[in-house]
Amino acid sequence: MSPSFEVTILGASGGPLEGTTQCFMVRPTRLDTLASICVDAGVGLRQIIHTLLDSKGTLDAEAQIESFYENDFEPASSFVHPEAPYKLGFSESILHSLKKAMGESKENLNTMDVALQLFQNLKEYYVTHPHLDHTNALVINSPSIYDPRFPSNKTVYGLPFSVEGLKKHIFNDVSWPNLIEDGTGMLEVEALKSESSHDCKIFPQWNILPFKVSHGVGASDVLDHIYSTVYLLRDRKSNDCIVIGGDVERDPKTGNKIYLDKVWQYLASNIPPKNLKGIFIECSSPNSSDDEHLYGHMSPNHLIQELSRLRGLYNNPNCLDGLNIIITHTKMISSNIDPRFIILRQLRELAKVTFMEKVLFSIALPGFTVVL
Amino acid sequence: MSPSFEVTILGASGGPLEGTTQCFMVRPTRLDTLASICVDAGVGLRQIIHTLLDSKGTLDAEAQIESFYENDFEPASSFVHPEAPYKLGFSESILHSLKKAMGESKENLNTMDVALQLFQNLKEYYVTHPHLDHTNALVINSPSIYDPRFPSNKTVYGLPFSVEGLKKHIFNDVSWPNLIEDGTGMLEVEALKSESSHDCKIFPQWNILPFKVSHGVGASDVLDHIYSTVYLLRDRKSNDCIVIGGDVERDPKTGNKIYLDKVWQYLASNIPPKNLKGIFIECSSPNSSDDEHLYGHMSPNHLIQELSRLRGLYNNPNCLDGLNIIITHTKMISSNIDPRFIILRQLRELAKVTFMEKVLFSIALPGFTVVL
Repeated sequence: MSPSFEVTILGASGGPLEGTTQCFMVRPTRLDTLASICVDAGVGLRQIIHTLLDSKGTLDAEAQIESFYENDFEPASSFVHPEAPYKLGFSESILHSLKKAMGESKENLNTMDVALQLFQNLKEYYVTHPHLDHTNALVINSPSIYDPRFPSNKTVYGLPFSVEGLKKHIFNDVSWPNLIEDGTGMLEVEALKSESSHDCKIFPQWNILPFKVSHGVGASDVLDHIYSTVYLLRDRKSNDCIVIGGDVERDPKTGNKIYLDKVWQYLASNIPPKNLKGIFIECSSPNSSDDEHLYGHMSPNHLIQELSRLRGLYNNPNCLDGLNIIITHTKMISSNIDPRFIILRQLRELAKVTFMEKVLFSIALPGFTVVL
Repeated sequence: MSPSFEVTILGASGGPLEGTTQCFMVRPTRLDTLASICVDAGVGLRQIIHTLLDSKGTLDAEAQIESFYENDFEPASSFVHPEAPYKLGFSESILHSLKKAMGESKENLNTMDVALQLFQNLKEYYVTHPHLDHTNALVINSPSIYDPRFPSNKTVYGLPFSVEGLKKHIFNDVSWPNLIEDGTGMLEVEALKSESSHDCKIFPQWNILPFKVSHGVGASDVLDHIYSTVYLLRDRKSNDCIVIGGDVERDPKTGNKIYLDKVWQYLASNIPPKNLKGIFIECSSPNSSDDEHLYGHMSPNHLIQELSRLRGLYNNPNCLDGLNIIITHTKMISSNIDPRFIILRQLRELAKVTFMEKVLFSIALPGFTVVL
């Protein structure tokens, strides 16, 4: 079976470092254009440039990743399952399409131009929630939409709480120029409906299904529930599917399983295990954190419990064997050891105990492409 | 005369690239602690880490700066006046204080810890306006305030439109957890009054004077006026002073000079030219841009006119000789040549024509410290 999805991880941390937060650039495999979509936009144009520069290099598994703990940089191989389909830089199909586009260009394009071409072809953003670590590059990059040499209209999709958040609090001429209502129509926002299938416009073979999930409570008012989104991307032809989530907490241990569990229920009912190609999911903190200090996030204990639940719903003990689970949004807090290493070790240990040792756990690494 | 101010430029671009936007870390010279303040917060903790790593190197004027135009990196010397007091990395006094602090520590501190120590000692932010390219790292970094090993309460200052923008639209549990009202009191915001002197708390020898300036009109409603701030930092002992501005447009050519001109009027009336040590001011676009496409920003023509006005108010043709003008917020748009090179060339050409060739024009370079 050939893979269906190319996911270039532009950023994946859960802060507190700026300039590294979550953005996944996604497109079908074997595409001969530069088109792509993004899930979240914690980083953008500058990370596209850096990923382009890395794509020129020959390093791969030994590529150096910013760490700043035991060592300032660590080799990529330390974060990734050896069988995970990771590649440094953009996919071959993007590099090939870029070469073609540059061959056809009458201009001598520099790196900024090449990056703007890629940015121009990024037509749709799917935002998981309005927190700025998931949206700020979409904002900061937005003036490029009007670049006279590389104009590019874009649509931002999200569940109503995301769309309303961006309209009311970000693109409002206070936090940022209101480019949504500037009369040009270049930037549009459109609300999706939870659990309602959306047809991706630039990739008509894709259905995108958003699930509203829980992301804790307000910092100033604990009665104020905060939400986020898990997106399920399905290729209609192959029925292959990947899941990309924003920040999320597990459903309560007792009572109704009404948020994240709906994703598992949908997968178990609609996507045969062989078509479930990968799950990008947050694991913000190691197990050492008390559950009450997770603030709407997950730890390895929770993630393993959620995967056990998914396996149970599939009712097949081997259904997750070989599945790529890509961990995102780890918080880079003060620590003696890189928190991503701790989380990966805890996940792998728990996976053994729960008979999930064949699940392929990796950390989402900025500047890498995962082909699924 | 020994210098009074150390300004570490953490970021300086006017977008559209994320992760490089304006933040100046400022402290008095000859300080033997790690204390500092920031004017704006377009970048933060991650740039502190990168500046720390650069401080270990021996490169200086030939340090490589991200450009992505003719070359992907250009030597720092191409952006800086040869007489400008630029130094790669943090100041000697910060490095010395860090060494002392680490010597006293019983722990083995890694780069993240060292950066968090610096961040912990950054007690006050002075925000020029609420646009996200000037505030987003303050937001994304904010969970570090609670780091159990390096807790750090902080106060954000700004004119009322900045403070209100942050409270209403950013720290509101929609765009970001409302850490201002989370009951801990760790993050506070406090409004300043335009043209009213504020006593800096961690540096009691400093007066900080905010001036409300004009920054164009709303993108959705041209009747909606957008404002920004120019800060004047004055050392009470030496009477030395530096000016650091956010985004700003010049005052109208005709009619009342009511915004930026007040800064020049104040300087000419209160600060002898020898005490005016430097002006950090935006020049977002080259002169090729039509004035109506500046969107509340300045071009070299405007900046030279403003400096001429300042010289006129001082009523001394040589008063600006040797003055460091540090250009910030250049927009990194599509171009054959790095827009910062174009702006610098245009400024220097105009300076000749207007008899200001002894003004020292440089570009604000991320990761460098200017000692003034």
